[in-house]
Amino acid sequence: MDQNELKQQVGQEAVKYIEDGMTVGLGTGSTVRYMVDALGKRVQEEQLNIVGVTTSNRTTKQAQDLGITIKNIDEVDHIDLTIDGADEVDDNFQGIKGGGGALLWEKIVAINSSKIMWIVDESKMVHQLGKFPLPVEVIPFGSAHVFHELQQKGYNPEFRMTNDTKFLTDQKNYIIDLQLNRIGDPFGLADDLVKMVGVVEHGFFLNMVNTVIVGRESGPEVLHGRD
Amino acid sequence: MDQNELKQQVGQEAVKYIEDGMTVGLGTGSTVRYMVDALGKRVQEEQLNIVGVTTSNRTTKQAQDLGITIKNIDEVDHIDLTIDGADEVDDNFQGIKGGGGALLWEKIVAINSSKIMWIVDESKMVHQLGKFPLPVEVIPFGSAHVFHELQQKGYNPEFRMTNDTKFLTDQKNYIIDLQLNRIGDPFGLADDLVKMVGVVEHGFFLNMVNTVIVGRESGPEVLHGRD
Repeated sequence: MDQNELKQQVGQEAVKYIEDGMTVGLGTGSTVRYMVDALGKRVQEEQLNIVGVTTSNRTTKQAQDLGITIKNIDEVDHIDLTIDGADEVDDNFQGIKGGGGALLWEKIVAINSSKIMWIVDESKMVHQLGKFPLPVEVIPFGSAHVFHELQQKGYNPEFRMTNDTKFLTDQKNYIIDLQLNRIGDPFGLADDLVKMVGVVEHGFFLNMVNTVIVGRESGPEVLHGRD
Repeated sequence: MDQNELKQQVGQEAVKYIEDGMTVGLGTGSTVRYMVDALGKRVQEEQLNIVGVTTSNRTTKQAQDLGITIKNIDEVDHIDLTIDGADEVDDNFQGIKGGGGALLWEKIVAINSSKIMWIVDESKMVHQLGKFPLPVEVIPFGSAHVFHELQQKGYNPEFRMTNDTKFLTDQKNYIIDLQLNRIGDPFGLADDLVKMVGVVEHGFFLNMVNTVIVGRESGPEVLHGRD
């Protein structure tokens, strides 16, 4: 199976965990895309009564086109289960997200969810975080100075670009990717970043995920993180 | 003298500290407005060669109308002196800002400034912070949940409104004001707020200011904070 088939496989597996009546957080990214397709099919075939809360304008559009009822996060009391992708997951179930640029809304949806499930192909499972560049969402105003500070700290920052212009998040912020290769202390780094003025969020998702479904040649493997 | 005369007095006093060739951070608010007027006069009369870096779209417009050269913060290497107002300043020179809603850009300009001066009328000087509501800038997406969490923590939150709609900052975020009355531990509270997902910044300006000029009936009083 190629990577896309593995992604489709875990997307289809994940929707089995969605029950009638749930409010479901819908992540962003290529793996989630397959999951939302599979969810749309269940909603149509089984008249499943669910409410989706999305983490990006892209996912909102896809879900609505499939006939999934979408509410804004501020219109719901809580989210029962959020299914999202991840860019790296380590042995302790700590993750990096934000390759797609939706980390801020993804994190806001995640912290308001009772349960969190990540769906990934096996290439995302690592022993130590950091090979994947850590995304940091920053306010455009003053971002050259934040960039300079990150550089001085030795974090190898790079502005994310779309063609010749700086990538803009749904929240109209910039993303600075940090190429760290090996991250020894994710908690310490997260704390350092969050205290920097101009930094809105970072791509660490620490002590958050309950279940990871990994797409493997041998079939989807279900791993349990925190309760 | 009424409050406006005190504000005008300190605004005029403050511009004396601006020297030819400086890059100057220009704050936001009613007191700063008088200072920018006085600066515009010096620029025109003395052909003072300065560059201004502004903290709000309002100040940008005012300064440009007066013929002051304005650069974006990301176009300058550093700022020599920032002159801004404050809503409360305590005995230890800790402050609360953001009554005007520009706290985020004000803080970004402040942390990139070699020296910071606040100009206030005497009503802003307090023994303990907290009578003035502490502004917290939050991402609109998920803000109902941030509000609820602030409520549960007993922080007396209130969304800032403009008529019937939520106030929007220059960065298109909301402001939640916390009516705390007495803040015993500003550093602890700042740390708590900055770690909340969805919070962009708070209105505490701690260990930042070098000089405070206080408008008093007897004339402007110059107080020295940190070096």
